[in-house]
Amino acid sequence: MSRRQLVLGAGFFYPGGEHVTSWRSPAARPGDFFDLDYYTRFAQTAEAGRFATVFVADELYVWDRFASGIDHGVNVRLEPFTLLSALSQVTTKIGLAATVSTTYNEPYHVARKLASLDHLSRGRAAWNLVTSASDEEARNFGRESNLDHPVRYRRGEEFVDVVTGLWDSWDDDAFRYDRASGVFADRAKLHVLDHAGEFLSVRGPLNIPRPPQGHPPLFQAGASEAGRALAGRTAEAVFTLSPDDLTGARRLYADYKLRARRAGRAADALLVLPALSPIIGRTDAEAEEKFRELASLTPDRVSLDLLSHHLGADLGERDPDELFEFDFDVAGFNQSQSFYAWIASLLAERPYTLRELYTELLRRRFRLGTPDSLAEWIAERYQRRAADGFILMFPTLPDTIEDFVADVIPRLTDAGIHPAGYAGDTLREHLGLARPEGRYVA
Amino acid sequence: MSRRQLVLGAGFFYPGGEHVTSWRSPAARPGDFFDLDYYTRFAQTAEAGRFATVFVADELYVWDRFASGIDHGVNVRLEPFTLLSALSQVTTKIGLAATVSTTYNEPYHVARKLASLDHLSRGRAAWNLVTSASDEEARNFGRESNLDHPVRYRRGEEFVDVVTGLWDSWDDDAFRYDRASGVFADRAKLHVLDHAGEFLSVRGPLNIPRPPQGHPPLFQAGASEAGRALAGRTAEAVFTLSPDDLTGARRLYADYKLRARRAGRAADALLVLPALSPIIGRTDAEAEEKFRELASLTPDRVSLDLLSHHLGADLGERDPDELFEFDFDVAGFNQSQSFYAWIASLLAERPYTLRELYTELLRRRFRLGTPDSLAEWIAERYQRRAADGFILMFPTLPDTIEDFVADVIPRLTDAGIHPAGYAGDTLREHLGLARPEGRYVA
Repeated sequence: MSRRQLVLGAGFFYPGGEHVTSWRSPAARPGDFFDLDYYTRFAQTAEAGRFATVFVADELYVWDRFASGIDHGVNVRLEPFTLLSALSQVTTKIGLAATVSTTYNEPYHVARKLASLDHLSRGRAAWNLVTSASDEEARNFGRESNLDHPVRYRRGEEFVDVVTGLWDSWDDDAFRYDRASGVFADRAKLHVLDHAGEFLSVRGPLNIPRPPQGHPPLFQAGASEAGRALAGRTAEAVFTLSPDDLTGARRLYADYKLRARRAGRAADALLVLPALSPIIGRTDAEAEEKFRELASLTPDRVSLDLLSHHLGADLGERDPDELFEFDFDVAGFNQSQSFYAWIASLLAERPYTLRELYTELLRRRFRLGTPDSLAEWIAERYQRRAADGFILMFPTLPDTIEDFVADVIPRLTDAGIHPAGYAGDTLREHLGLARPEGRYVA
Repeated sequence: MSRRQLVLGAGFFYPGGEHVTSWRSPAARPGDFFDLDYYTRFAQTAEAGRFATVFVADELYVWDRFASGIDHGVNVRLEPFTLLSALSQVTTKIGLAATVSTTYNEPYHVARKLASLDHLSRGRAAWNLVTSASDEEARNFGRESNLDHPVRYRRGEEFVDVVTGLWDSWDDDAFRYDRASGVFADRAKLHVLDHAGEFLSVRGPLNIPRPPQGHPPLFQAGASEAGRALAGRTAEAVFTLSPDDLTGARRLYADYKLRARRAGRAADALLVLPALSPIIGRTDAEAEEKFRELASLTPDRVSLDLLSHHLGADLGERDPDELFEFDFDVAGFNQSQSFYAWIASLLAERPYTLRELYTELLRRRFRLGTPDSLAEWIAERYQRRAADGFILMFPTLPDTIEDFVADVIPRLTDAGIHPAGYAGDTLREHLGLARPEGRYVA
């Protein structure tokens, strides 16, 4: 089988775009962030570009650790399942991927919502597993602090096992609808999960037929050692931060594929989809100018507080223009280890002041270029096996998704790496993934 | 202020209609139960009849206590929030009420989903609070058995307090979107709930703006003493089983209103909406014939097992044609006390064999009549203050909602008690309920 074509996801966390102050950009429409029409336009634009899926990142709290977050950030968002269910009715092909915290959810609810969305969308649902990184989230769910990093990944793995088991409660052909005999379902095709594990006790069965896709595909974003290990065993696509250098990116890609093979799976069964936030100019200079404009929208205080957040330390009293020193302890850090480790790796390269550091962090979040150079960069990463595709996290909305679909997508399609049309009707088909059999099928 | 007009809800629990074997009726389309088009037709028909709301009943398990449930019942359904979010895009006026278990949910998730649905539907969301009655549900959520009846009602009341508090996290005018200053939200208009109660610890704030309705309206179905007490203090509409006799129905109505007043609320702030399952014939004889047809679709074993379920005892070995005796203990019963008490009241009237009992229970679930007699009955109940309206639980679908809208609704409108058009755009407007201020508003 030849390699699948490029797989693109159209993602967002902040409704206004990837950056915390994207809502200030001239194109932004912050007054529309709670109007479905805004998301309809986003999803339909992505669908016109043959994106495999919409991808809704999510967290379960208001970022109020620092006052600047309340003042300047978009600390509010629609809930992913309600949003994607609504979008299922204004789109026909594109996937609908919802972020799910396995730490602060019950698997019965999650299995059911995803199955329901999969039925409503006729096979387009997916989930993005996160384990939740912040103590603030814990406090919204009856705990004082978050579960420890390794514990929440163990729970995550058990959670996946329960959810997939619940989806298999009813065989695909369990329902007979036989008016004459009065038999609605075939009792022999119903299975009771009876799960009792370290974290979860769930009897089942699930009260909804098996999803059209069998199992809605599983995305996963963790890039820590625990996150990669979980992805190798369970995920069908990883959403990851990939190194800037091609060699490092190829190494990361190979690492994920190896982990899948070691778990007894085909390398092809796990897609590697790095994040990509393109800033597109007609010239490199124009792209640079757009980046500077975007960066200028962010008050210093917000940049500093974001960095404090990601390092789990209050840096507010430090002089932003003195050399920044920090004792990193990746394994002992209980928020997102991958972002923390990424900052550590930057500081290992050369000295930075605080101001230089947060400026550099912002710059590295984006990829600047022209439509030609961005299409070439994407093609190279794809062809050199540094990526199976990308999750686009658009810098500002709605303008940058529209620019990307208008100017970059045609170049990728002309190059023969991006599909000219959808391969089928379900997200699994768009992803080139087989539909799994139920676990009880002989 | 004159009294509000009749308020109707279009409900279902089984996708095929109110009865467990409605899916066998000639009009039923069991193969469409997981296709949104089926529910779109239902909701649009209800909207054409100026129903205030769609009302989706729900449970969190497969009824497999008895094998007959698996064989003959519709033990599967779409998840309410995903379904109603999808329906928000194919309707424009009708309310969207989702059943929520306060025993097996986290209030942060529930507050967020309802707020999100309220935004997506521009003010049409509502919730129907249930406390979950079955041990089978407990086993899907990490418990061996359900919380005791009084305990789950205490938790329910605390849950309502937390959810409404979370909705008030941001004042209605908290968001400024001020590009020039970079201020997105006004910090002074954000409130941290910091709830720590008997069952729940929830810090907040909620990560979504205050819902368009302020608080999506609260329906509640509990009719036990604990249920009525909770409704009096918190609910805006009760969905109840109302006695057949007008005097008893008026007494129940007055009891709810009194409980609201005792809680310091206006009697008008709590709507009493009994369940109504009309079987409509052109003549009484035709209605009777339709009832017999529907009853004949139910195997004796299913009827017996349903009764066993509602009494929390296995009656399968009893002779269905001997006189039935049973020791009732309403206060000690841990499933639905109201249905249990209703059965006890029937047996207090006269002796029944088991077969007579389940036949009578089925008959009393429905109201048989012609369009004229049903419209007159509804008008009388409304005018004599035995009901503010009804939640219609249609015996079979899609035929009986279509018959009701075609034949009964015009009679109610002509009589001047049912609205000829929607009063506004939000469900609160349809219900004649004021939009609540936030709890932090001075």
